[in-house]
Amino acid sequence: MVEIRKPISISDAVRRVMNFTRQGEVVVIPISKAYGHFLAEDVVATHNVPPFDRSPYDGYAIRAEDSREANINNPIVFEVIDVIGAGYVSNKEVGSNQAVRIMTGAQLPKGCNAVVMLELTKEFEQEQKKYFSINRSFLPGDNISLEGEDTKVGTVLVKKGTKINPGVQALLATFGYSEVKVAKKPMIGVFATGTELLNVNEPLQPGKIRNSNSYMVCAQIERSGAEAAYYGILPDNFEVSYNSLLDALDRVDILITTGGVSVGDYDYLPDIYKKLGANVLFNKVAMRPGSVTTVAEWNGKLLFGLSGNPSACYVGFELFARPAVRTLLFSQEPHLNKAQAILQADYPKPNPFTRLVRSTVTIQDGHLVVKPSGFDKSNAVSSLANANALMVLPGGTRGYEKGMKVNVLLLEDDVGCEWPWS
Amino acid sequence: MVEIRKPISISDAVRRVMNFTRQGEVVVIPISKAYGHFLAEDVVATHNVPPFDRSPYDGYAIRAEDSREANINNPIVFEVIDVIGAGYVSNKEVGSNQAVRIMTGAQLPKGCNAVVMLELTKEFEQEQKKYFSINRSFLPGDNISLEGEDTKVGTVLVKKGTKINPGVQALLATFGYSEVKVAKKPMIGVFATGTELLNVNEPLQPGKIRNSNSYMVCAQIERSGAEAAYYGILPDNFEVSYNSLLDALDRVDILITTGGVSVGDYDYLPDIYKKLGANVLFNKVAMRPGSVTTVAEWNGKLLFGLSGNPSACYVGFELFARPAVRTLLFSQEPHLNKAQAILQADYPKPNPFTRLVRSTVTIQDGHLVVKPSGFDKSNAVSSLANANALMVLPGGTRGYEKGMKVNVLLLEDDVGCEWPWS
Repeated sequence: MVEIRKPISISDAVRRVMNFTRQGEVVVIPISKAYGHFLAEDVVATHNVPPFDRSPYDGYAIRAEDSREANINNPIVFEVIDVIGAGYVSNKEVGSNQAVRIMTGAQLPKGCNAVVMLELTKEFEQEQKKYFSINRSFLPGDNISLEGEDTKVGTVLVKKGTKINPGVQALLATFGYSEVKVAKKPMIGVFATGTELLNVNEPLQPGKIRNSNSYMVCAQIERSGAEAAYYGILPDNFEVSYNSLLDALDRVDILITTGGVSVGDYDYLPDIYKKLGANVLFNKVAMRPGSVTTVAEWNGKLLFGLSGNPSACYVGFELFARPAVRTLLFSQEPHLNKAQAILQADYPKPNPFTRLVRSTVTIQDGHLVVKPSGFDKSNAVSSLANANALMVLPGGTRGYEKGMKVNVLLLEDDVGCEWPWS
Repeated sequence: MVEIRKPISISDAVRRVMNFTRQGEVVVIPISKAYGHFLAEDVVATHNVPPFDRSPYDGYAIRAEDSREANINNPIVFEVIDVIGAGYVSNKEVGSNQAVRIMTGAQLPKGCNAVVMLELTKEFEQEQKKYFSINRSFLPGDNISLEGEDTKVGTVLVKKGTKINPGVQALLATFGYSEVKVAKKPMIGVFATGTELLNVNEPLQPGKIRNSNSYMVCAQIERSGAEAAYYGILPDNFEVSYNSLLDALDRVDILITTGGVSVGDYDYLPDIYKKLGANVLFNKVAMRPGSVTTVAEWNGKLLFGLSGNPSACYVGFELFARPAVRTLLFSQEPHLNKAQAILQADYPKPNPFTRLVRSTVTIQDGHLVVKPSGFDKSNAVSSLANANALMVLPGGTRGYEKGMKVNVLLLEDDVGCEWPWS
């Protein structure tokens, strides 16, 4: 008794999921903990940059007009009337042929409009006073970083939903964000199903394999920016499984199960969805692997029923669950970033379904090339460690050849994209 | 009194640092915490994959020879003598024209050598016994995943020093690594120096700016895989600063200071190195920015004296400190990964020094293009948030033009490279 399911396209499926995504909660954390979090507010310039006219060099602040006649045959002498370090402001006003010794980053003293680099001066002392001479002229504004020339107060610098990298961190510090509003990490619960599964710490037994999907998905959850709560392997008992899922739904933002969504006799997740009264968004997608991926919605929470097959499970998470996580993190570009790459292997066999192949993208002479991670059967397992992309091979009547351009979805790119599907 | 320092090339400088790097410590953590850590041991296949001959489909296990005469006009009937789920092993031996109902992933029952997919069968019952018929023949081995066909026991799957991603996590689980040996996160201490610096929570004051470098560097430290300990801004007092640094050196693997390494009157780090008896590896590098970057070694620990200029500080960390961190993390590819990209801006002015420009690399039609992050002066500050590469423009007598190929060092790539310098 094979249940007949109607497959929908990947883009339809993702769209149905996106209809039920929502933005998450905001938490305030100290800047020292902010790296790697997602901004829950725009970063705005709270002052001009530079905040005052300042010197980009170690040197002497002068009035440019006093240097007008200086040249190699006519050195002009300046008297040093003050010495200030960065962070200090001179309270002396510079007059004709006077100068203030100034350090990199220091505010320009009143009356000055140019800075002479130390290397261009000849310093000397006379009667315990300090002097220097220069043998070239300077124009007003020479060697000065002007207030606001980099950024004007009020400018939006980084958009809400951006992942905080070292550059963003520098901006937060510059503008006094000692506490930062970030997205609270969503909590994603994970259950495995499958009577063949052993725990990782159990020895192998005939017919059984260790549960690897849950650990893989938990890592994918962390990579996406959320927190994973692994609840173990569901027993082969409908009522116990139903109650475990119902309990977990109280504690998580999103619930993921691996396995149990095929049409096999032992796959009882469809019945659990039914008993929950969950709204099944789809239970078949026109893609390989992962065609049995099922997504349901229950009281505003998404339930992802990923396939028990490892590559289907991996693909299902990245296509459907990741954008839900990133939306909770306020991202406007919640989907995997798409790029083109040159195929390095033949796929001669046509396939009616769109294939999503775990692949390794590398850069050769400035362009992207892509190879399926499990291409050499002999190291299909180890090469999964190198997967950094999903290659998208649309279904059709023709195969794909080495040298063709194909689309890839980048797994390790933090930027994301608005919509990768046509 | 300008001290004359002799600049060395970037590659010489990096090489001098690498002479004093060492591998770090090993800690054992549960697999559930392993994502994002660096492997301190190779991952080895502890069994064959698959661990037994198994079915990749839901269907019936049969003896292929019994199907030989089956065709559209001659359906052959099989009796179903057992039903097993994945993880269970049938204890019945399959005889002539008998079959066992088998789930995806289940071990092949004794005597069987082919699997018939459910969709190709016509099931029926007779006298409370189950039967099915097929109208095509199967060959021995059809629809069977053979033991060890993916990976043989003993194969090294992932090398020590690799960052644990979701694929590696799956391998660790599959092969029973419930506890994982990873590199202990190195502890990197950070001090800021600079009389112009305010703390992030302080209001702006004339002539002063907030300390942003420390937070930026702490984020760079985290990105590199280490842990950052920020110890605050050093006071403008030699003895106090000396003692603070000496104290910190006890508690950290690497010590970073920002600022205080120029030849200005207020830059006292060179004197602190002298008093420590530290071995100064270099204090001038033929590059822009960051020429005053100073690295010293003291009792086997590296001290990085980064420039107080934000971009010089950023570049100095990535070029010199990052490979030291990654070596502590057992990486064999500790340097930033290098690629080629097409320049999208003109750099007409020649510069005798190699320039390292914080840049944004994007992918266009499958190839990398690069633009300096601060190119448009109007958003020089905000665009730093988008920097994901350092563009390397070798010094010389010619400038660079839009459309030329240049080297870029990728900042967000976790793979790294063995040696990016020529």
